[in-house]
Amino acid sequence: MVYIIDSGNTKFGRSNQNIIKLGATAAKDIVKRFHDAIDLVIVSNSYSGEYTGNSGINSLITTALSLDEVPSLRVDNTTASGSTAILLGRSLIEAGRVNTVLIIGVEKMSEVDTRRSSEIISSFLNPVERDAGLTLPSLAAFMARSYIREYGATRESIAMVSVKNHRNGSMNPIAQFQKPISLEDVLNSRIIADPLRLFEYCPISDGASAILMSSHEYAPSLSAKRVNVMETTVSSSSSVVSTRENFVSIDVVKKAAEQVFQKTWLYPRDIDFIELHDMATILEIVEAEDMGFFRKGEGWKAMKDGETELGGSIPINPSGGLISRGHPIGATGIAQAAEVFMQLTGNAGKRQVRDAERGLSLNMGGFGNSAIATIYEVV
Amino acid sequence: MVYIIDSGNTKFGRSNQNIIKLGATAAKDIVKRFHDAIDLVIVSNSYSGEYTGNSGINSLITTALSLDEVPSLRVDNTTASGSTAILLGRSLIEAGRVNTVLIIGVEKMSEVDTRRSSEIISSFLNPVERDAGLTLPSLAAFMARSYIREYGATRESIAMVSVKNHRNGSMNPIAQFQKPISLEDVLNSRIIADPLRLFEYCPISDGASAILMSSHEYAPSLSAKRVNVMETTVSSSSSVVSTRENFVSIDVVKKAAEQVFQKTWLYPRDIDFIELHDMATILEIVEAEDMGFFRKGEGWKAMKDGETELGGSIPINPSGGLISRGHPIGATGIAQAAEVFMQLTGNAGKRQVRDAERGLSLNMGGFGNSAIATIYEVV
Repeated sequence: MVYIIDSGNTKFGRSNQNIIKLGATAAKDIVKRFHDAIDLVIVSNSYSGEYTGNSGINSLITTALSLDEVPSLRVDNTTASGSTAILLGRSLIEAGRVNTVLIIGVEKMSEVDTRRSSEIISSFLNPVERDAGLTLPSLAAFMARSYIREYGATRESIAMVSVKNHRNGSMNPIAQFQKPISLEDVLNSRIIADPLRLFEYCPISDGASAILMSSHEYAPSLSAKRVNVMETTVSSSSSVVSTRENFVSIDVVKKAAEQVFQKTWLYPRDIDFIELHDMATILEIVEAEDMGFFRKGEGWKAMKDGETELGGSIPINPSGGLISRGHPIGATGIAQAAEVFMQLTGNAGKRQVRDAERGLSLNMGGFGNSAIATIYEVV
Repeated sequence: MVYIIDSGNTKFGRSNQNIIKLGATAAKDIVKRFHDAIDLVIVSNSYSGEYTGNSGINSLITTALSLDEVPSLRVDNTTASGSTAILLGRSLIEAGRVNTVLIIGVEKMSEVDTRRSSEIISSFLNPVERDAGLTLPSLAAFMARSYIREYGATRESIAMVSVKNHRNGSMNPIAQFQKPISLEDVLNSRIIADPLRLFEYCPISDGASAILMSSHEYAPSLSAKRVNVMETTVSSSSSVVSTRENFVSIDVVKKAAEQVFQKTWLYPRDIDFIELHDMATILEIVEAEDMGFFRKGEGWKAMKDGETELGGSIPINPSGGLISRGHPIGATGIAQAAEVFMQLTGNAGKRQVRDAERGLSLNMGGFGNSAIATIYEVV
């Protein structure tokens, strides 16, 4: 068994710190508490070269943290980098190579303009499709249209994901957006890719998150606060989207979730809350269905009926999700894990999910290119 | 136990292929032979963002290899990326998460000019020292001066590393430089950082290498050719160099080697050949000493006496090393492993080390920032 025993975050949004300081800041309290116990540092970061021209950031961050003699590396799997780092960290612990791993997810995206940012992020789309003009926002818009047509979902029910996530984010001190917004605000914001509007997409963000993972044997001597990282599963598929069977479901999300439930002998009803990959509003609905929390085509009703609110039957994205907390790409998977850790140790403040004993996180790479699902449990 | 059961390379040098094709080309024969057995792909690459602006290359390479449903990730640890990927691959196998891992190391460096390339590579030096004008070539020159002064080494003995490595490279079909050169050629090439000259440094290279690793249980059913990856050890230190005790020795190399010998219960005399990190001639001598193959200050005599030649007592860099094979940064650690695999399975052609049963590789990150040592053995 592998535990998370501590977490840290910077504020998400626009930061004046460079990427090295940003990464170090998220981890500094963890390092203060556990300096001598850290065996390895994994930095989850996709785009330091593209956005800020910084190379070797894992070494520079360990130097900034006075962890020079601790081995480090950087891992990149685009938007799923954070969960990939968690999978590597747990495997290194399971293999007995290390007792603890400090994982720092960081991205600094505000130094280039939106157009350049979009080019960078879209560069992992299949070249043929990218050259035909596909972007991540347009793919989400295609999905929203297909979903509305297929299941008769109301436009409002989809926009309500943004309202809920902004409300949750307003209770999360690190969230990029700190103000609740109304359904009108969402539906009156400018169109990005018809029918989806500005407030229905995650923003461009700077930010960093950190967690400390420990082996089962080692954890009790370090900390009383522990969360069991029960299982982590990965599913991958083609980066080509035009050949997919349908556009109202994401195959890798289905498969990763199926596997994580199978391996833990759990069912969706055993999960108390979910942190998922709401790059756009529609994705929250589709992913929750694909993971088995709602029947296909009925997720929008659950949204409308408030079931995914903080006090509902299955709260989704209590942190505010990508839409409100923000989406500094390499940090997102770690931010999800940090949120789950805070929730399960009862430290989530105003956004605390009551009696939370098990959480699930879903981190997606590309637009359904890969998905990584993790189930966490209180100890 | 973890095995290498296959390897592949592109030609190193200047390539017309883009980074995706380059990576896929190195692995294509492995994939042809073992397509259905590949559980995970790790791409070792440091600078795709900086050099070519390609992101998410692990997904694009798996798509190019028709391995879409195989999970993949990218790992970066600057010049030690390749060995870091091997350490991760073996840990994932040891943890029982996968049976096999295809590791592809790739870098495409020829698309920017030398000045920009130098900026990119030096960006992981400590900012204060970098701003004071330190570069990797100048650090190697400092080391050569210190070494000559301290141990009375002849200038020629150091240059002979380049002569030997070019001769070895001339027998390696993938080497960037295919022609033997003379001592005069080396000593007459232009000064880069006094006293070291152009032919004493590794070049800027495009290239890719691949290996397939397998669990002990699974390997026999896949392949008769197997090499045991006995042990892999890492040592890390500060990226600051100006505070080091001396400049004729590299602490992390010493420590990584000590650990790898300790864990395998072996001694330098048990090793039949070494692939090491000859970013510059002087580094080959210093590293071989630090690993315990020669007494401190006597490595240059061994070089002079031909002990490190192919037919000598301890051949170093039979592949031609970084100086002659080339140094596409993310590929280098994998190229070393591929060379050891070919040597230990008796497939190294004209550069075959006779009766080779055990090989050691040493891959360095930065200028003594980190070192990873691995011992391999025939099965």
